[in-house]
Amino acid sequence: MDPSVNANANGLARTLDGPTNPMVTPLLTDLYQFTMAYAYWKAGKHLEQAVFDLFFRKNPFGGEYTIFAGLEECIQFIANFKFKDEEIAFLRTALPATCEDDFFEYLRGIDCSDVEVHAISEGSVVFPKIPLLRVQGPIAVVQLLETPFVNLINYASLVATNAARHRFVAGKSKNLLEFGLRRAQGPDGGISASKYCYIGGFDASSNVAAGRLFGIPLRGTHSHAFVSSFMSPDEIVEKALCSSDGSVTCEDFVSLVQSWLNKIQWSNSFRGIFGETNQSELAAFTSYALAFPNNFLALVDTYDVMRSGVPNFSAVALALSDLGYKAAGIRLDSGDLAYLSIESRKFFCAIEKEFSVTGFGKMTITASNDLNEETLDALNKQGHEVDAFGIGTYLVTCYAQAALGCVFKLVEINNQPRIKLSEDVSKVSIPCKKRCYRLFGREGYPLVDIMTGENEPPPKVAERILCRHPFNESKRAYVVPQCVEELLKCYWPGSSDKKREELPPLKKIRERCIQQLSQMRPDHMRRLNPTPYKVSVSAKLYDFIHFLWLNEAPVGELQ
Amino acid sequence: MDPSVNANANGLARTLDGPTNPMVTPLLTDLYQFTMAYAYWKAGKHLEQAVFDLFFRKNPFGGEYTIFAGLEECIQFIANFKFKDEEIAFLRTALPATCEDDFFEYLRGIDCSDVEVHAISEGSVVFPKIPLLRVQGPIAVVQLLETPFVNLINYASLVATNAARHRFVAGKSKNLLEFGLRRAQGPDGGISASKYCYIGGFDASSNVAAGRLFGIPLRGTHSHAFVSSFMSPDEIVEKALCSSDGSVTCEDFVSLVQSWLNKIQWSNSFRGIFGETNQSELAAFTSYALAFPNNFLALVDTYDVMRSGVPNFSAVALALSDLGYKAAGIRLDSGDLAYLSIESRKFFCAIEKEFSVTGFGKMTITASNDLNEETLDALNKQGHEVDAFGIGTYLVTCYAQAALGCVFKLVEINNQPRIKLSEDVSKVSIPCKKRCYRLFGREGYPLVDIMTGENEPPPKVAERILCRHPFNESKRAYVVPQCVEELLKCYWPGSSDKKREELPPLKKIRERCIQQLSQMRPDHMRRLNPTPYKVSVSAKLYDFIHFLWLNEAPVGELQ
Repeated sequence: MDPSVNANANGLARTLDGPTNPMVTPLLTDLYQFTMAYAYWKAGKHLEQAVFDLFFRKNPFGGEYTIFAGLEECIQFIANFKFKDEEIAFLRTALPATCEDDFFEYLRGIDCSDVEVHAISEGSVVFPKIPLLRVQGPIAVVQLLETPFVNLINYASLVATNAARHRFVAGKSKNLLEFGLRRAQGPDGGISASKYCYIGGFDASSNVAAGRLFGIPLRGTHSHAFVSSFMSPDEIVEKALCSSDGSVTCEDFVSLVQSWLNKIQWSNSFRGIFGETNQSELAAFTSYALAFPNNFLALVDTYDVMRSGVPNFSAVALALSDLGYKAAGIRLDSGDLAYLSIESRKFFCAIEKEFSVTGFGKMTITASNDLNEETLDALNKQGHEVDAFGIGTYLVTCYAQAALGCVFKLVEINNQPRIKLSEDVSKVSIPCKKRCYRLFGREGYPLVDIMTGENEPPPKVAERILCRHPFNESKRAYVVPQCVEELLKCYWPGSSDKKREELPPLKKIRERCIQQLSQMRPDHMRRLNPTPYKVSVSAKLYDFIHFLWLNEAPVGELQ
Repeated sequence: MDPSVNANANGLARTLDGPTNPMVTPLLTDLYQFTMAYAYWKAGKHLEQAVFDLFFRKNPFGGEYTIFAGLEECIQFIANFKFKDEEIAFLRTALPATCEDDFFEYLRGIDCSDVEVHAISEGSVVFPKIPLLRVQGPIAVVQLLETPFVNLINYASLVATNAARHRFVAGKSKNLLEFGLRRAQGPDGGISASKYCYIGGFDASSNVAAGRLFGIPLRGTHSHAFVSSFMSPDEIVEKALCSSDGSVTCEDFVSLVQSWLNKIQWSNSFRGIFGETNQSELAAFTSYALAFPNNFLALVDTYDVMRSGVPNFSAVALALSDLGYKAAGIRLDSGDLAYLSIESRKFFCAIEKEFSVTGFGKMTITASNDLNEETLDALNKQGHEVDAFGIGTYLVTCYAQAALGCVFKLVEINNQPRIKLSEDVSKVSIPCKKRCYRLFGREGYPLVDIMTGENEPPPKVAERILCRHPFNESKRAYVVPQCVEELLKCYWPGSSDKKREELPPLKKIRERCIQQLSQMRPDHMRRLNPTPYKVSVSAKLYDFIHFLWLNEAPVGELQ
């Protein structure tokens, strides 16, 4: 039975469209997946049942947690995995001419109907060594999936984690806006960043294409170029603005703004604080307000924030207020954001007091300009008045650590467990087709993740179980879980009769992520010296790993 | 006249297909480009002629040069720039409901037939502040191009530069293979990386999709999973191998390999050096050789390089040699690459000597495993025997610096020069529609780049010209150029009657890059403390910048 048809029958057609990026095809893989497929085929091994684990070895950004993301794209990829004739034709030219025709016929016939994918739910908090995906099926086909799966999960999980870390530092009350498209690593670096930053806890994006594809809320105002494209208010031709309730029309909004600017300048609170403001800027703000009287948000740092930007903004905002509109706020994009936000806030509060405009002091202040975890942290320590942060470069390129090292390792073939050895213990893979559980403690926090062999009895609530470090003999602990969650669920049943787990909509994934983060014990989450979360294996699996290890490793000879 | 039709008539249809990634549409931009477009439109300013410069402020990776890349994609983007009905429908929902219908009608009609793009040729060596692109046209349209242009150029130039730097350290004689797809930032992070690393001087890629799209040579062999998917040579069923010239068939290649392994083990040169080698590995190598007798390249570090991988490889290679095949070499993917490559080379040379197999000592050794500029440099200093490097993560994610800060600044509107001020002098933009030249010295090296106003007479060969630092009064020098190259060429004439510069094929761009790099004075190129290349303005432009600056900056008051 073709699982994608099955899925369609269940009314899940939407989620089984192809991947977001049409460039994600079966050719988006490393050449060696095809040379291996040929060698397997030639050796008659290509149908052997293999089990691969996809996992990472170290949490990114010096932290002790990772957000798992990218699963939906992987499932959409395999649901539509099929070679086109022109792709087969290209492969003939890419492989040695000695490759037999029958192999290409074989490739033409393959799909993922015999592949079974178990995975942790997207948006979950995850840890090193625990398989994010367990992929089972004919070895030649499963190998072809390695590169696209790792590609689709690596960056997705990395940037979702980065977003979650930024949210953690910024705090729950701040608005976080992803502004990274222009600095992202290529077009869908940008689109993926918008998607996965939203999952990681951002509120909105500037990326219109991502808004359309994923329904992410969009934000944006204007740039410095907009400000400097104006010369002076004299050039504004259409000066009329109808009041918010439609009852009156101000025929000369430009003059109304000018009169407010004069009032501010010569009022008791502001006398001598600023002189002539920049006229380009005043013209730009006035024009922008005429276009968006309900959404007037101005970038105030093109010339001088306190001597030009904030006074000009305030004059326009007060003129709008006369007509029943409420200005949306300012954006600061350079300079000392802590100082400028505090000074701007003082200015707005003084306006509220001087002219009795209720709420003016609460004007939203957005800050942007090369923000990252460290600058957010520094702003918090210094004190600031910023309500919303627009974050780009450092967020979307994951500047602090530009890659997550996900790997895809063979753990079993033909029911034979396999181990990958390495001189570096942290690189030894954990063999066997496994089950994974999260054990929760009395206070509701997750305590430890444990991997067991597939046929071991699952950990039980209120029953003591020994959790062992997979490689360090002396690290082990008894745990009495108050709750047990099986982590790997069947997201692609292949030819088995398992029920296929539904792919949730983006908002649900985001909610899961936020909920799981809030459930973690605080010491795992802190930025400085966080406590590592424990990842373990059952006693039985521990013994088996070390039996296999001794079996495979050559015995050295000291000379 | 529609320039894309014009172009088609000139037989350039290929290069004017859309961008490689079909997700690059007019919606792949920041929302504020649309809010600004509306505000321009509402103010009746949308058709005003604007000139924007796209440039960066600092060379990446602590170096003093950058490779310009991404131009072809930009031109393909604007050649096909047109909103679809469903995109307009989405924009209606994304913008405030107060936006007037006529604006969306206006959007529906726009394309880039009135936009003029001058650019430096792709693959050129470029420097900070010099415009890579100069884009002129109706301000509302040109602003919509900002985000996609910056996105398409930022990462392309960054990763091409990274590739060039890796090539510089590795030296001309080494084979450089890009292996980054799985660790790249999303699917077309991978595809773009393959394209632009090739431009920057890499020889091949593992990425099959990129091979198909761009004709980049492909490389790849097998993974550790391939090795551990085998148990022992006993499982090999099809054991026959026909000789290279077709004259004889070896009926039991497995036994031939085993007999060679015994010969090596008990020969004078190798007695006691290694014991029983890993049988999974031996089976995997033998099977791979049976599938690819002409292309036998083996990954030798799954168990133990010197005690298992290299002896097993050598046995298979010698068996192939008996049948007239020449093995391709080994790949090392862990451990001390300098030491292991040297030891492997010694082993191969000893085989050549012991068994009189000419050329066996010259076996190609490929190294991979988290390589970057620093590790290549360290390998060089230590001494090694590696012939080819497979480089992934650090190359394609530009781990050492994950973003290039390209910006897009308004420099003129309605023939009025504009300047963007900043408290940080390095962020002040250089106003005016400009021309840019590269001046070459007596020895053929580029000496300095100079920007002039559009209507200034160009620098002349053998004629003295004053080159001034744009912001530092005291930095200036007279130059007598031996050769003058105008940098900005017309790649998209818009409605002008200028000739459109042809977009060269990828190989030509790569050749340009390699040629330009070789032409640079060595002290600009060295890794440690390179000399900055000089970027200057004409005396006339200098005076004008500072006149404008004084005009725009508010006068402070000390209190």
